[in-house]
Amino acid sequence: MKGLKRSCYCGDVRREHVGEKITLMGWVNRRRDHGGVIFIDLRDRFGLVQVVFSPEVSEEMFEIADELRKEFVIAIKGEVIARPEGMVNEDLATGAIEIYAEELHILDRAQTPPIQVEDDINSSEEMRLKYRYLDLRRKPMQDNIILRHKVKQAVRNYLDNKDFLDIETPMLTKSTPEGARDFLVPSRVNKGQFFALPQSPQLFKQLLMVSGLERYYQIVRCFRDEDLRADRQPEFTQIDIEMSFMSQEEIMDLIEGMIQEVFKIAGFEAPTEFPHMSYHEAMDRFGSDRPDIRFGLELIDVSDAVKDAEFKVFSGTIAKGGQVKGINVKGGVDFSRKDIDELTDFAGIYGAKGLAWMKIKEDGVQSPIAKFLAENELNSMLDAMGAETGDLLLFVADTPKVVAASLGNLRLKIGKDLGLIDQDEFNFVWITDFPLLEWDEEAKRYVALHHPFTMPKEEDIDLLDKDNAGKVLSQAYDLVLNGIEIGGGSIRINNSKLQSKIFNLLNMDEEEIEEKFGFLLEAFQYGAPPHGGIAFGLDRLVMLLGGLETIRDVIPFPKTQRATCLLTEAPSMVAEAQLEELGIEVEEQIEID
Amino acid sequence: MKGLKRSCYCGDVRREHVGEKITLMGWVNRRRDHGGVIFIDLRDRFGLVQVVFSPEVSEEMFEIADELRKEFVIAIKGEVIARPEGMVNEDLATGAIEIYAEELHILDRAQTPPIQVEDDINSSEEMRLKYRYLDLRRKPMQDNIILRHKVKQAVRNYLDNKDFLDIETPMLTKSTPEGARDFLVPSRVNKGQFFALPQSPQLFKQLLMVSGLERYYQIVRCFRDEDLRADRQPEFTQIDIEMSFMSQEEIMDLIEGMIQEVFKIAGFEAPTEFPHMSYHEAMDRFGSDRPDIRFGLELIDVSDAVKDAEFKVFSGTIAKGGQVKGINVKGGVDFSRKDIDELTDFAGIYGAKGLAWMKIKEDGVQSPIAKFLAENELNSMLDAMGAETGDLLLFVADTPKVVAASLGNLRLKIGKDLGLIDQDEFNFVWITDFPLLEWDEEAKRYVALHHPFTMPKEEDIDLLDKDNAGKVLSQAYDLVLNGIEIGGGSIRINNSKLQSKIFNLLNMDEEEIEEKFGFLLEAFQYGAPPHGGIAFGLDRLVMLLGGLETIRDVIPFPKTQRATCLLTEAPSMVAEAQLEELGIEVEEQIEID
Repeated sequence: MKGLKRSCYCGDVRREHVGEKITLMGWVNRRRDHGGVIFIDLRDRFGLVQVVFSPEVSEEMFEIADELRKEFVIAIKGEVIARPEGMVNEDLATGAIEIYAEELHILDRAQTPPIQVEDDINSSEEMRLKYRYLDLRRKPMQDNIILRHKVKQAVRNYLDNKDFLDIETPMLTKSTPEGARDFLVPSRVNKGQFFALPQSPQLFKQLLMVSGLERYYQIVRCFRDEDLRADRQPEFTQIDIEMSFMSQEEIMDLIEGMIQEVFKIAGFEAPTEFPHMSYHEAMDRFGSDRPDIRFGLELIDVSDAVKDAEFKVFSGTIAKGGQVKGINVKGGVDFSRKDIDELTDFAGIYGAKGLAWMKIKEDGVQSPIAKFLAENELNSMLDAMGAETGDLLLFVADTPKVVAASLGNLRLKIGKDLGLIDQDEFNFVWITDFPLLEWDEEAKRYVALHHPFTMPKEEDIDLLDKDNAGKVLSQAYDLVLNGIEIGGGSIRINNSKLQSKIFNLLNMDEEEIEEKFGFLLEAFQYGAPPHGGIAFGLDRLVMLLGGLETIRDVIPFPKTQRATCLLTEAPSMVAEAQLEELGIEVEEQIEID
Repeated sequence: MKGLKRSCYCGDVRREHVGEKITLMGWVNRRRDHGGVIFIDLRDRFGLVQVVFSPEVSEEMFEIADELRKEFVIAIKGEVIARPEGMVNEDLATGAIEIYAEELHILDRAQTPPIQVEDDINSSEEMRLKYRYLDLRRKPMQDNIILRHKVKQAVRNYLDNKDFLDIETPMLTKSTPEGARDFLVPSRVNKGQFFALPQSPQLFKQLLMVSGLERYYQIVRCFRDEDLRADRQPEFTQIDIEMSFMSQEEIMDLIEGMIQEVFKIAGFEAPTEFPHMSYHEAMDRFGSDRPDIRFGLELIDVSDAVKDAEFKVFSGTIAKGGQVKGINVKGGVDFSRKDIDELTDFAGIYGAKGLAWMKIKEDGVQSPIAKFLAENELNSMLDAMGAETGDLLLFVADTPKVVAASLGNLRLKIGKDLGLIDQDEFNFVWITDFPLLEWDEEAKRYVALHHPFTMPKEEDIDLLDKDNAGKVLSQAYDLVLNGIEIGGGSIRINNSKLQSKIFNLLNMDEEEIEEKFGFLLEAFQYGAPPHGGIAFGLDRLVMLLGGLETIRDVIPFPKTQRATCLLTEAPSMVAEAQLEELGIEVEEQIEID
C-alpha cells in the first residue's frame, strides 16, 4: 500500500473537514470527465465521496487518473474542499464537499465486472450467486449483511444483560433420525460409523440445563438435508435459547423484550405487549396455527345453521364429523365466474372438493346452492356471516383439517389480492395451547406436533394413554409475525418416566429409546431442573426486518435450490484416496446438471 | 413449578435483604442435621446460600426436608435472617445471612451421582466425559464456561466498536485438501459428490474483502480430521478476523488492543505493547518460532570457536554446513551422570545424535570432550557461553534444524525442571519475517510455511523463482504467549498472477489450480483490495487465561483422543436406508474399542 495510511472512511467526510488533507481508499464507483478534469465517485463500505483529479495539480497524476475504470481499487490523498453553493448534492451524505486529489495510487485494476455493482440490477440470480463477491458489493446487499450483524449483536447484548451464557455445542454429533433427514459425516478413526450435523442443539441445551448452567444461548448453524422446496437452505442459523426455573409466561415476557430490542436496532418499534392466542382459536378463526392477523376475513362456522339441511354436501359432511365454514369477502359481489373458478381451483390444492358461493345483491342472494337450502337455514347462514349487500360469501364443507387449510389459504390469497394487508405493520401473536401429539392416520401412530421433548400441560398428564393422548395440550408457544412463524419453543420434559412414556406413545420400543436417548433419560435421574426455551430462525427474522423476499439475500454465501454453491462449485468429487481413508465407497453417481 | 416465581439467585442474597421473604430455586449442595433442624446449602449458578428447615415452622415441611439428598432440585420460600455474630461465614458471599424456610417444594429428586459435584474430584476423565452434565455442575468447570463466554463477548464488543461485522460463512463447503485432512459430507442431491467441513473460512473471508465489506470477524467452528495427538480436537473454535486497507503494523496494533481487552475481562493486565521478534532471531536465540521468553537459557552459537577443531564431531559438522550451539545451565554443575544421560535421550527425540557437556568446577573444566579441544578453542567456547564456576554447558552439533529443535526443547525442559519460569507472567511476543516457503526434501517441493495465500514481502517478490524462493520472506505474523502460538495471520495476496505463481511453486499445475482455486483467481480480477487478517484458537486462549492444562476443560462437550463423544456415543452406526439415500456404501468397519 505504498506506505499510505487511510485516515478516514469515504462516507464520513463532512463540511467540518474542509481544509484538511485526508487519505481515502476504496473502489471507483463512477467516473465522469467534465471541463478538463476527472470526477470519481469513490466508494467504501461507509459511503461515497466525490474526488476531483485536475491536470493543474499534477500532470502525472492526471494521466494515472485517466486510466481509472469502474471497480478499480485506489488510494488518494487530497484536500477537502467545500462545494460551491449550487453544486451541493443533498442526496449524498458527503454531498457538501469534494476532495481535490494530490496523490493517486492504483492498488488494483479491475476488468469489467460480469454483473453491475449498482443498487438495482437485472442480472439473473444464478449470475449473482456465481459472482457473489460482486453482488455483495451492492449497497442493498451490504445493508442486509450489516442488518444481520446488528441483529446478532442486539440479541447477544440483551441476553448477556440477563445472565445468559453463549455456550457452544458440538457440530459433529449423533444421528437420531427424527423429523428431518440428517447430514452424515463418515468417521475415519471409527470406520463404518458416522457423525451427524445437528438439526438443532436441542438435547445439548437441555443437558446444559441439567448441568445447572441455567441460562444458555447460542447463535448457531443447524443443518437439514431436505429437498429445498420453498425458501429453505441446507444450513441455516438459529438463535437458540434455553433457561431453567422459568414458567412459560416468564419465558415469553423475556423473549418479547429481546424482540423489541431487535426491532429497535432495525429502526422499527415493536408493540410493548404481544397478544396470545390459543392454537384452537387460531385454527378456528384463521384456519392456521400461524395466523396473519393484520386483516379480518375470518373463518366463520355455519355448521349449526345447515346441519339438518337437505343439501347433503353440507349436512352429510357434518354428520360424518366434518364442518361447514365460510369467509365473507366484503365488496366481493363483482367477482366474476372465472374469478370464483380460480379460487375453487386454489382451494382444491388444499383438499377442498368444492367451493360454495353466495353473492349478496341488492335484489337478493345469488348462489347455485341457495335452492337447496330452506329459508331459515339460508337466513341463519347470512346472519352468522354478517352478510350485507355487496358481499361475496365462500364456503367449504369438509373435515376440519381440509376446511382450515383451504379456507385459511384462500383467506390469505384474497387478503393479498385485495390489498387488505398493511405492509408496514409488524403484527405479533403468540400461539399457545398446542396439542402435544397428533394422530398420523397413515403411519397409524402419534407424532409430536413440536418435538418429543415438549412438556404436556400438568393438568393433562393423566390423559397420556393411547386412547386419550390426542387430547393432551402442551406447554409450547410459537411466535408468529405477519403470518410467519419466527420462533418456536416450549417447556421441556425434565423427568425420565414421563419422557419414556412420550417415546412409547411415539411408537419407540425400549431398545430404540435406550440407543437413541438413553443418555438423556439417565441425565434426568440426577436432579434435572424445570426448563424451557425457544429457537428463532435468524435468516427469516432478518429477511422480514429487511423487507426482503428470500432468505438467500441475508445469507452471505447461500446455496441454490439444488443445494449447490455456484461460487465454489461445492459439492464436488473428491479423491479416491480420501474415500479409502474413510472406508466408504460411492455406489451411485449423479453429476450436477 | 407449582406457581412459584424465583425472586432472587442463591448467590445474591446479602445482609441488606434481612427481613425480606424470598423464593429461591436450586440444587441441594450439602445437608447437615444439627440441634433438631436441617441445614441445606442451596446452590445455583450464582452461588450458595444456607437454608434452615425447622419443625417449629412446619412439621409437614420438615418431613419433606428430611427427604432431601444431594443434588435434589428444590424451590423454597422463606425469610432472610441475619446470622448471629459468631456464626458469620466469611468464606461465603452469602455467609452473613441464612434463609428460614417456610415453604419447600421438591422439583426433582436425584439418585446418587456417579461423580461428585465438588470442586476437587478424583474421577477419571472418562467418567467426567460420560457424565459431562454432572462434571459441568462443578464450580471450576462453570467458571471455565463463564470465562469463555466473557472472552467471546469482549472480542465481539471490541471488534464491533471498530466497525467489524460478524459475517457467517458456509459450513458445507468445498474440499481442497491442503494442509490437514478434510471431514467430508456426502451430498444426497448430488450423489457421488461431497461437501467438506471448513478447516478455516480463509477463502470466504478473503472473498468478503473482495466484496468490499472491509472488516470481518467470526467466532467460528472449524474442523480437522487429524489424529488427535497432543491436545487437539476434531472440531475447534477460531476467532477469525480479516480487514482491508491495513498494513501489517496497523493490524498488529488493532489486535493488541483486542488481546488487552480480553485479558482485562479475565482479570489480568496485558502489557501495553507487545515486542516483535523476527523468525530468524527466534530460531537463533530460542530454537523455536514460538519462543517462551519468560526465561533465559538462550542458545549460543560456538561454531566460530570450534570450526577448526580436531574434534571432528564439531568441525566436521560445521564443514558440512551444520553448526554447534550450546546452552548454559547456571548452577547445573551438580547434575549427575544419570541426569545428563536422560537429557541426552531427550535431545535424541528431536534428532540430536549426542549431547556434549562441560561442568565448570572450582578446579577447572570437567568434560569428556575437553581433551579433543585446543586450549584456545576451549577458552573461546567458555567465553562465548559466559561460563562461570558452577555452570553446566550442553552442546549439540548438527544441522541448524536439529540443533534448534533439540536445544530449543532441552531449554524448555530444563527451564521447567529448574523452576526458571514465572508461572504468573503473561509474556507476549509477535514473531515476524517468516520465510514464505520451505523446501520439503522428502516431497522435493516447496511447502507454504503459513498457507498459500500469504503475501511475500514486496522487496522479495522478484526472488520468486524455483532457485531463490526459499529466501523470500512473508508478511506473516504470529502472536506467541508464554511459548504457545495463540494467533497467526498475514497480509494476503490480492493479485491473481502472483497467487498463480505461488501455486506453481507449490507444484500445482494449471488444471489443479483452476479446479481448486479458479473462483479465487477470478475474484481477484475485479478489483481486490489489499487485505490481511489473523485467526486465534479460542479454546487454547481460554485455556491459558483459565490456567488450565487441557482445552477439553474449556469445551462444553469435547471428544476423546479417539474422536468419540462418551456422552452421546457418537459417532455411531446409521441405518442402511440413510446410506442408500446418499448413494454410499461402507467398505470397512471398525468398532470403537
